[in-house]
Amino acid sequence: MAYKDEQLNEEKVFKDPVHRYVHVKDQVIWDLIAAPEFQRLRRIKQLGTTNYTFHGAEHSRFNHSLGVYEIVRRIIYNFQDRPHWNNDERLLCLCAALLHDLGHGPFSHSFEKVFKLDHEHFTKEIIVGDTQINKILEKVSPGFARKVADVIAKTYEDQLVVSLISSQIDADRMDYLQRDAYFTGVSYGHFDMERILRVMRPIEDQVVIKSTGMHAVEDYIMSRYQMYWQVYFHPVTRSAEVILSKILHRAKYLFETKDFKFKLEPTHFMSFFTGNVSLEEYLKLDESIVHYYFQLWQQEDDEILSDLCERFMNRRLFKYIEFNPNLQMNEWMELYRLFQSAGIDPEYYLVVDSSSDLPYDFYRPGEEEERLPIHLLMPNKGLKELSRHSDIVESISGKKRTDHKLYFPMDMLDAIKDETVKAKIKEILHGQGEIENVE
Amino acid sequence: MAYKDEQLNEEKVFKDPVHRYVHVKDQVIWDLIAAPEFQRLRRIKQLGTTNYTFHGAEHSRFNHSLGVYEIVRRIIYNFQDRPHWNNDERLLCLCAALLHDLGHGPFSHSFEKVFKLDHEHFTKEIIVGDTQINKILEKVSPGFARKVADVIAKTYEDQLVVSLISSQIDADRMDYLQRDAYFTGVSYGHFDMERILRVMRPIEDQVVIKSTGMHAVEDYIMSRYQMYWQVYFHPVTRSAEVILSKILHRAKYLFETKDFKFKLEPTHFMSFFTGNVSLEEYLKLDESIVHYYFQLWQQEDDEILSDLCERFMNRRLFKYIEFNPNLQMNEWMELYRLFQSAGIDPEYYLVVDSSSDLPYDFYRPGEEEERLPIHLLMPNKGLKELSRHSDIVESISGKKRTDHKLYFPMDMLDAIKDETVKAKIKEILHGQGEIENVE
Amino acid sequence: MAYKDEQLNEEKVFKDPVHRYVHVKDQVIWDLIAAPEFQRLRRIKQLGTTNYTFHGAEHSRFNHSLGVYEIVRRIIYNFQDRPHWNNDERLLCLCAALLHDLGHGPFSHSFEKVFKLDHEHFTKEIIVGDTQINKILEKVSPGFARKVADVIAKTYEDQLVVSLISSQIDADRMDYLQRDAYFTGVSYGHFDMERILRVMRPIEDQVVIKSTGMHAVEDYIMSRYQMYWQVYFHPVTRSAEVILSKILHRAKYLFETKDFKFKLEPTHFMSFFTGNVSLEEYLKLDESIVHYYFQLWQQEDDEILSDLCERFMNRRLFKYIEFNPNLQMNEWMELYRLFQSAGIDPEYYLVVDSSSDLPYDFYRPGEEEERLPIHLLMPNKGLKELSRHSDIVESISGKKRTDHKLYFPMDMLDAIKDETVKAKIKEILHGQGEIENVE
Amino acid sequence: MAYKDEQLNEEKVFKDPVHRYVHVKDQVIWDLIAAPEFQRLRRIKQLGTTNYTFHGAEHSRFNHSLGVYEIVRRIIYNFQDRPHWNNDERLLCLCAALLHDLGHGPFSHSFEKVFKLDHEHFTKEIIVGDTQINKILEKVSPGFARKVADVIAKTYEDQLVVSLISSQIDADRMDYLQRDAYFTGVSYGHFDMERILRVMRPIEDQVVIKSTGMHAVEDYIMSRYQMYWQVYFHPVTRSAEVILSKILHRAKYLFETKDFKFKLEPTHFMSFFTGNVSLEEYLKLDESIVHYYFQLWQQEDDEILSDLCERFMNRRLFKYIEFNPNLQMNEWMELYRLFQSAGIDPEYYLVVDSSSDLPYDFYRPGEEEERLPIHLLMPNKGLKELSRHSDIVESISGKKRTDHKLYFPMDMLDAIKDETVKAKIKEILHGQGEIENVE
Repeated sequence: MAYKDEQLNEEKVFKDPVHRYVHVKDQVIWDLIAAPEFQRLRRIKQLGTTNYTFHGAEHSRFNHSLGVYEIVRRIIYNFQDRPHWNNDERLLCLCAALLHDLGHGPFSHSFEKVFKLDHEHFTKEIIVGDTQINKILEKVSPGFARKVADVIAKTYEDQLVVSLISSQIDADRMDYLQRDAYFTGVSYGHFDMERILRVMRPIEDQVVIKSTGMHAVEDYIMSRYQMYWQVYFHPVTRSAEVILSKILHRAKYLFETKDFKFKLEPTHFMSFFTGNVSLEEYLKLDESIVHYYFQLWQQEDDEILSDLCERFMNRRLFKYIEFNPNLQMNEWMELYRLFQSAGIDPEYYLVVDSSSDLPYDFYRPGEEEERLPIHLLMPNKGLKELSRHSDIVESISGKKRTDHKLYFPMDMLDAIKDETVKAKIKEILHGQGEIENVE
Repeated sequence: MAYKDEQLNEEKVFKDPVHRYVHVKDQVIWDLIAAPEFQRLRRIKQLGTTNYTFHGAEHSRFNHSLGVYEIVRRIIYNFQDRPHWNNDERLLCLCAALLHDLGHGPFSHSFEKVFKLDHEHFTKEIIVGDTQINKILEKVSPGFARKVADVIAKTYEDQLVVSLISSQIDADRMDYLQRDAYFTGVSYGHFDMERILRVMRPIEDQVVIKSTGMHAVEDYIMSRYQMYWQVYFHPVTRSAEVILSKILHRAKYLFETKDFKFKLEPTHFMSFFTGNVSLEEYLKLDESIVHYYFQLWQQEDDEILSDLCERFMNRRLFKYIEFNPNLQMNEWMELYRLFQSAGIDPEYYLVVDSSSDLPYDFYRPGEEEERLPIHLLMPNKGLKELSRHSDIVESISGKKRTDHKLYFPMDMLDAIKDETVKAKIKEILHGQGEIENVE
Repeated sequence: MAYKDEQLNEEKVFKDPVHRYVHVKDQVIWDLIAAPEFQRLRRIKQLGTTNYTFHGAEHSRFNHSLGVYEIVRRIIYNFQDRPHWNNDERLLCLCAALLHDLGHGPFSHSFEKVFKLDHEHFTKEIIVGDTQINKILEKVSPGFARKVADVIAKTYEDQLVVSLISSQIDADRMDYLQRDAYFTGVSYGHFDMERILRVMRPIEDQVVIKSTGMHAVEDYIMSRYQMYWQVYFHPVTRSAEVILSKILHRAKYLFETKDFKFKLEPTHFMSFFTGNVSLEEYLKLDESIVHYYFQLWQQEDDEILSDLCERFMNRRLFKYIEFNPNLQMNEWMELYRLFQSAGIDPEYYLVVDSSSDLPYDFYRPGEEEERLPIHLLMPNKGLKELSRHSDIVESISGKKRTDHKLYFPMDMLDAIKDETVKAKIKEILHGQGEIENVE
Repeated sequence: MAYKDEQLNEEKVFKDPVHRYVHVKDQVIWDLIAAPEFQRLRRIKQLGTTNYTFHGAEHSRFNHSLGVYEIVRRIIYNFQDRPHWNNDERLLCLCAALLHDLGHGPFSHSFEKVFKLDHEHFTKEIIVGDTQINKILEKVSPGFARKVADVIAKTYEDQLVVSLISSQIDADRMDYLQRDAYFTGVSYGHFDMERILRVMRPIEDQVVIKSTGMHAVEDYIMSRYQMYWQVYFHPVTRSAEVILSKILHRAKYLFETKDFKFKLEPTHFMSFFTGNVSLEEYLKLDESIVHYYFQLWQQEDDEILSDLCERFMNRRLFKYIEFNPNLQMNEWMELYRLFQSAGIDPEYYLVVDSSSDLPYDFYRPGEEEERLPIHLLMPNKGLKELSRHSDIVESISGKKRTDHKLYFPMDMLDAIKDETVKAKIKEILHGQGEIENVE
């Protein structure tokens, strides 16, 4: 029997708290899960620093990847006898679903920003490069790995396949909303996925939703909206991310500073600092390694580096106020100056962070990261874009909401010796509203 | 106001998936949670290698410690106006609950066995030693830290206080059963804790259960029984633990071997190898550090060490069969000899592992680790030991169940060149029953 | 001890699937629950005919009333030490919460419409009339019953008390959303009530929400919106209600028709037909009695009455199409005429039913049924109306959505002998869109 | 297409709180659900008087019947390609599952005991008699109705088919345990059904369990044990049943008493009183009808009948003590005599009620109601009876536990005028232990 058709003797299952069981029957999927590059995802948290806010959110990307695979498996199971659906794409969909996050590193968001990396690039590299994953995929058929990479990169010609793992209502989002809700314990993030799966229909190059399922989709969109503002953009999480970014910046800066010498050479970080990261080096840098270095760096001679690392490891986070730098340029410049005069480097200790989300978008060609809008399949068999049918979705459609916050270490400000400077800083900060505790 | 009575302005809550919210009002508790020694528990998984079997089980001891605190808080809330209860012990109970697992290191079970350590010893050290935790506790009142340590060590004179966190139905067990069930996703581990809390009564030096709550307690005991065999002693988890132990053994052996030299000196492990672990060194060794070394050791020249580390990191586990070494000494010796002749070191690759549990025990004085039995408070106000009233509990009471398994690397056996040796090994192994896949 | 302060020896609990436990400590509450007028609520379904759509929705108003009581109990528990809160009103709030639905009869909606009744009137009657409930309340203090009735009627002077059970985010709504979601099994209706309870603050004459809880309130508003359209206005439920109303109309009509004689005199219905319902008669008419008569009426000589009763009891419901009588007056008149010519009485068999909901409303004085809007308590201690702060709520605020449907018995149409008439009817109906199956 | 093979255009689903969705694709099943005899089950509660104890337990037998059907549908789905399974029996299994409780009347337990009826007899009558159900089944194929009846009666030759709905681990039990747990809200009754379904294997004439699923089955057996003692045999429920039985006894007695005349002739009960119940009469007597009569009978001249009915309708239940009539014959006789002398008829007001359960049984041929034991399928393909492999099951296997209680109206005793008699009665009752409140 061809490898691509090989089935396990008995279906294997993974116990999953979100989908109850993840079912595996294909030998190919079984082998991919066992590959070292996939097992590595166990050492990378799905939600980075979110566990500093929601202590339950300690789940890994391994966890999530299995979930996305399982949802796609169920969707395809429903599609198998429908028109417009080509069941030859089945294994391709499953592989792409399982592997779509393969290139994520630890704390992806901060690492990507600081070191100008792109996890999607590494996903592709792992799939088409010299890896176990690649070997398994190429055993399916020569060129199969490339097809999997294309689906994940959204460039695969059959956009119906692409849309399963990358659209405004794809398996990726459906899994992470439910999973992140489960592990954080928040009451948002729930929607009737079973119903959504029942009303999904493959039509030409997209997956559409039978109009009878509109309310379930509304509920999903609202879940997403709530999760963004309640969980993903939680200011405490962002406070930890701010510190993390500043650590990376500082370490890179020190590395580039000729007269500074790390006590232990930061081997794993070298290529990140020099901007020339090989696949092998990238795969080695998981969350454990980052923690290892951050522990060591607490002992380094550079005060800023050691302070920031100590803060990160012991969760001594920055406090914050609402602060829009566009509108409050003067206060910002004044604070900057005051921090300097108090001997607190504002580059590292006075940080504006902004989050913004577009909860649902209709199609605006030419824009970056556009995703196909959700289409409802009406009783007369025509298609109608969701926001034209749903008041609620219409109300949030295309509206970007942005939230700006200013982060700073309250304890350092309290310790400023020059009472005038201290008073002035506090006056400006308090003038912006309440200073929020980072509980 | 005295520090011990200080209350936060507003009650703080942690969102908790198991207890919904963990409530903190005491400044002391708030400060303890923020202490580095407590934050360190974020980097130590509650269930060690269990996430290799149940991928959801990635939760930390930080997570569990907050849960135990919350349960004790609720118990005391119910107790506050009851006779026999001295509310002056309230803060002591809360601190002991929060800190009871403070001395756990990474993969405690294996580390303790291999390096002859005792996490309870370190819990005490952290509490009474030169730590942030100690400073906070001593601020409550001089000698308070010692009292907390005594409660955790079960030597505190008021055994009623001790029994809240250490009895056969204590807050510790009630939290971990529910929490581990939640994160693994198994359907065991649930019981009606709210009802148990309602029927708990402080009587002299113990917590007893109103007899109307007997069935809820039965259910709890059965949950515990099921969790042991379904989750805690799962053979796949044990397979990973077997490998982990063997890594530690090998590394220690190599360290003691004069002519072997690690490429990178295993700084964090030195004191473990020499058997002289200081508190500071102990606190530095969290799970990230262990992973860091295991990654490096894959590159070491010793084949056994690098193989075992590669297995552990990539989850290439040993397979197993049922095997009782007491009854099958001959087969064992024969296998040992055959492994040797095939060039596979049986010390590392042929491992018997036994698990046993005593689901419930009535009191047998003099035995190690005895815990007080559960007493029911009868309508006539007398006490009756649980197993005398419950058939189910009686049936499993005092009965130790042991399970023996033999672990070995199937892939290595398959690669044995000498076909006769290979055939003999397989014959013996298959003769013991089916070889179980480590899914 | 005064009756109003009497406490039960031990707190009693009711096991409740939604709130886990309902706690009762006051003797007064205990006695009210035991009163026959309250026990009668066991024989009245919370959701009338909804169980024809969602078979799990068989829960009674007894069930819901305990839930509302429990929520108010928890709110008050949180309020007890806050400024603006007068704990003397505690028992009043609990009684009003428990008894707020006391005057509901079977299938209230249809009965009230057909017989021009008002359940709020009967609630008051039961509380101030010659009943067990009244005796218990008056034992608390003379005039107490009247106060309870005033709270329920929203005329009590302390509007803070009123708002607990009657506002846009009151205990009534919070209970029924969760409870109806639980029993129907739909995935809507969930929100984080525990969080909402934590952020509720009594301020002068209303309950406001700390602004940090805004998202939880948004989620609650969305739950309500979803429940209305997915559950409460479900067309299948409305189809059953249409038939029920028509039964009541027909029975009244027959009663008023001199030459018709019921086989068994409809004793329980007499006063409803004559429009002069005494409290005693009202209390006797529970759902069982209605079912009893509907069973008998299947045997009556009037074909319309017996057909409609048979349909109701055996769930042979009408089918429906979208149909707006305002826009489609011609089709409506044509259908009416065609039904007549086919010998199908359109008064009973061609029914337009409209549902509409106002998911959230800001205050528009002078309008009927206005409810206070929800106010957020901002960090600066000012109040802000919810829809001014929340995009989502703003989007649905003050917008009434109406849905019109036309119901008819498809089986009767299929049986029309005159093929031309039949064809014309079907042509008009099909022209309006798909005819929906009543599954 | 033959009727038996007809499929609905689109699969229909029922939203079910326990199994999420109940799926129907067969036209036959769809028609059976719509039949009046099946719809009647909506008016019969699954748990009779249990809602007097657990107010959530208001669910109907309609609810449960759909659930059993759904479980069997899932089992068969798993079986379809397995050896030993004949897929021609599919529709037969589904019909038998759906209809297995069809003959239940209101409060079956009491009615059957008092009137010497047997719901299984009526199930058969409905299936093979002149009913809609029968017509539908005979349309499948002549004689099909009889086959369905045989499966339900356990006399069908293919015992594998029988075992799906009637064994110690059948779809019936699996549904009611979970469903009753859900609606009562108790935390017992949960087990991992999905896992049990996965490890079920058809082997010759029975369904066996792969031994790897043993713990899931243990958990199911324990759930059953807990549900029996916590829910099904709850003394408050039994108190209501005691009263209900006595009402039926009294009404029958009065009917047989020549000189008593009911104000309204109890038409629906006549055939029950005379012991000659036709199918038509049986089907008419649903729970609503019973409630109707009980309401009327409160007005009857017979004091005992009216008192008992008033108690039942208003939940003024009897109190109880533990009491074993076999061991306490003297006390019993003494109480009987004292009740008589106080003018309280002991036949109606002094009632011993016993419950007993056999949680799991191995096969003991010749005994009444024996059910096949559960067999485990061992790795070597042999079968092993469950209790030989599981300590826990062994401990409760074959052990009948019986619980005796004595019920009486405390309020009547309190009202006895003769202080000596009153004192003697109380002395005896209190001597047996605490008198339990019927909360």
